[in-house]
Amino acid sequence: MCGKVILVGAGPGDPELITLKGLNAIKKADVIVYDNLISKDLLDYAKDNVELIYVGKRKGMHSFKQEEINKILVEKAKEGKLVVRLKGGDPFVFGRGGEEILELKKHNIPYEIIPGITSAIAVPEVAEIPITHRKVATSFTVVTGHEAEDKEKKQVNLSELNADTIVILMGITNLEKLVNDLLKNPKRNENTPVAIILEGTTKNQKVIKGTLGNIVNKAKKEGIKPPGVIVVGEVVNVLN
Amino acid sequence: MCGKVILVGAGPGDPELITLKGLNAIKKADVIVYDNLISKDLLDYAKDNVELIYVGKRKGMHSFKQEEINKILVEKAKEGKLVVRLKGGDPFVFGRGGEEILELKKHNIPYEIIPGITSAIAVPEVAEIPITHRKVATSFTVVTGHEAEDKEKKQVNLSELNADTIVILMGITNLEKLVNDLLKNPKRNENTPVAIILEGTTKNQKVIKGTLGNIVNKAKKEGIKPPGVIVVGEVVNVLN
Repeated sequence: MCGKVILVGAGPGDPELITLKGLNAIKKADVIVYDNLISKDLLDYAKDNVELIYVGKRKGMHSFKQEEINKILVEKAKEGKLVVRLKGGDPFVFGRGGEEILELKKHNIPYEIIPGITSAIAVPEVAEIPITHRKVATSFTVVTGHEAEDKEKKQVNLSELNADTIVILMGITNLEKLVNDLLKNPKRNENTPVAIILEGTTKNQKVIKGTLGNIVNKAKKEGIKPPGVIVVGEVVNVLN
Repeated sequence: MCGKVILVGAGPGDPELITLKGLNAIKKADVIVYDNLISKDLLDYAKDNVELIYVGKRKGMHSFKQEEINKILVEKAKEGKLVVRLKGGDPFVFGRGGEEILELKKHNIPYEIIPGITSAIAVPEVAEIPITHRKVATSFTVVTGHEAEDKEKKQVNLSELNADTIVILMGITNLEKLVNDLLKNPKRNENTPVAIILEGTTKNQKVIKGTLGNIVNKAKKEGIKPPGVIVVGEVVNVLN
């Protein structure tokens, strides 16, 4: 008897931005293993007798380690359950979905991957910032502002990244350091436009625009808190 | 009397990868203006009396110019219609959505933007290539392989782009040139893994894996045709 695990991207915040396929998976799940970044409204679509397992951050307690989450997925699938692993955004954009797939493969557990709308693209988009725009940006890079402490040396740093647009996820608490790194980047300077979008795609969305020279002060005045998306480049003002 | 235009991302191919919000827009549209890259199944959800306007490429005929598409959107909205502009993938990832928004703003036409699942992320993902992976790739760049002839000099070329993973959209017909550019890139070499995914997320999906050194020959043998997504970097083999 063996169940199955479906990795589902829940999208960027607005619950209507989940895919049809993702929603159908939620509706038939026996178990849903979910993070704190997903819209709780999505859980209302689940079966009455669904088992909900929260593996996000909890106040005053440690976060679940990836190994603990892997173990839950494997155990529940081995019980013959249809397990939905529901992640904010997309499972493969800094979602550690690949690590979960490797673990499922190791245990020969069937799996399926259902992509989600990533906040890296959709959050700027709904705030009317197109991450590409003809003659302005023909490339964009997405990077995490909260890197694994075990990052390999060969990987690229923010001070070097050279695409036309840079989108930083999970960078709000590190904003000052990230801006300092970007100011060392030969393609950027104090006048490079920056936008910070908080609670994007939801009714609480807030957009702060500035430049690399003034965004840290602006953000401090607003008392910004995660989660948020940072966009760097000329596209920030292209639809103004 | 003024209508409204809703830009909707149709997703990467699998019709079930549209968002709930996008599908609801299709259901209520008076007019749908669509490209050749969208799944035709999505049009079945439209009202019986919907007006369907195809603005994609047609065999033996010129493609619609962006100005012509803009004009259709403005005219139909001015007739008081609810217009859905349905685009493959996401409207702002090389979708020229920004240009359409600028035109709508110029004419004071109300608009809404509904993101779609971009093939840049989802096509590799469903083919089991995670574009980010801990210790392997903490940044990814998406770039078009078919650049506007009017690209500005300050924009970044493929030979310089330095993120850990590079995803190239619309690059199938230019593959040989793109690979040559990548081989000039100091972060890549003949052994850098490459995957080409054709008709990704559909039942006809085909994946060709190789390296920058041999992918051109492999692709020729397979007789590859667009549309396809090219992924470059160590992530190509991380879930093998």
